[in-house]
Amino acid sequence: MASEFTKHNEIYVKDQHKPNLPLPPSKKLLIVTCMDARIDSFAALGIQQGEAHHVRNAGGRVQEAIRSIIISQRLLGAREIAVIHHTGCGMLTFTTEQLRDTVKKDVVDDSTKAEIDKINFLEFGDLEESVREDVRILQENPLVLKGTKVTGWVFQVEDGKLVHIV
Amino acid sequence: MASEFTKHNEIYVKDQHKPNLPLPPSKKLLIVTCMDARIDSFAALGIQQGEAHHVRNAGGRVQEAIRSIIISQRLLGAREIAVIHHTGCGMLTFTTEQLRDTVKKDVVDDSTKAEIDKINFLEFGDLEESVREDVRILQENPLVLKGTKVTGWVFQVEDGKLVHIV
Repeated sequence: MASEFTKHNEIYVKDQHKPNLPLPPSKKLLIVTCMDARIDSFAALGIQQGEAHHVRNAGGRVQEAIRSIIISQRLLGAREIAVIHHTGCGMLTFTTEQLRDTVKKDVVDDSTKAEIDKINFLEFGDLEESVREDVRILQENPLVLKGTKVTGWVFQVEDGKLVHIV
Repeated sequence: MASEFTKHNEIYVKDQHKPNLPLPPSKKLLIVTCMDARIDSFAALGIQQGEAHHVRNAGGRVQEAIRSIIISQRLLGAREIAVIHHTGCGMLTFTTEQLRDTVKKDVVDDSTKAEIDKINFLEFGDLEESVREDVRILQENPLVLKGTKVTGWVFQVEDGKLVHIV
């Protein structure tokens, strides 16, 4: 698949790229969302090139976004954070304990097994509650700038609709 | 800015969203790239909704993507990883030591200061070398599935061109 990047990219360079935009996000916005393949975080939110930072990981969990948020706020001016989780998320389908067991089956050495046991996979059982929890974590984190506006949303992969939660 | 999401999203729902796609990424591909506002990782690579996982953080560093990669590979079938760093990256402009000092200036309590001193901001001094390093980290990590194809790229924010590194 990556072998097809070059062919697609040639068309993008010609027709779609906005050249020479500045480094800081012009809307002073950072989005935290899931890595899910069905979320096009530019198109779905109407975000243009250059406007917002896009942090994405499994689940869109903010616990793993703190390093990026500090860089975004202290060096590049972000003052607003939007947390977006989504329906049909893989994070609703397993527990950390189960996934640790699955991964350990392929591993022979004890140090790697110990490393796996340290990973919190940050799954969740309730979608809206995970959004509220992540917004709260950011509001209470002393490493996030005071006065940062934090909002929380659910993206519906079935129909593409974005729902405001908090 | 997030207040404008709903207005834009209504247009997206009507014209662009592909409804009811399956959860696993159809191209079995995971992309790791930077949160940078100028990188539209769908448009720039010609990726369609449903095809690939998009993991994004400051710099596009794989050290912070391992949790997501395990979930993507073990639960959702990804078998290929593309690492994409970019020109003009903020990660080329500071050191962890400098940023820790900046953040600590706003903090009074000692436990938060100690927490800041534990953060490695994962900056880099050479762009191509950071791509090679991240590809190597994934190739050598026992938590990444054996046989995973890993490629490394540089995205040029000035002109939108993608350059194959490794």
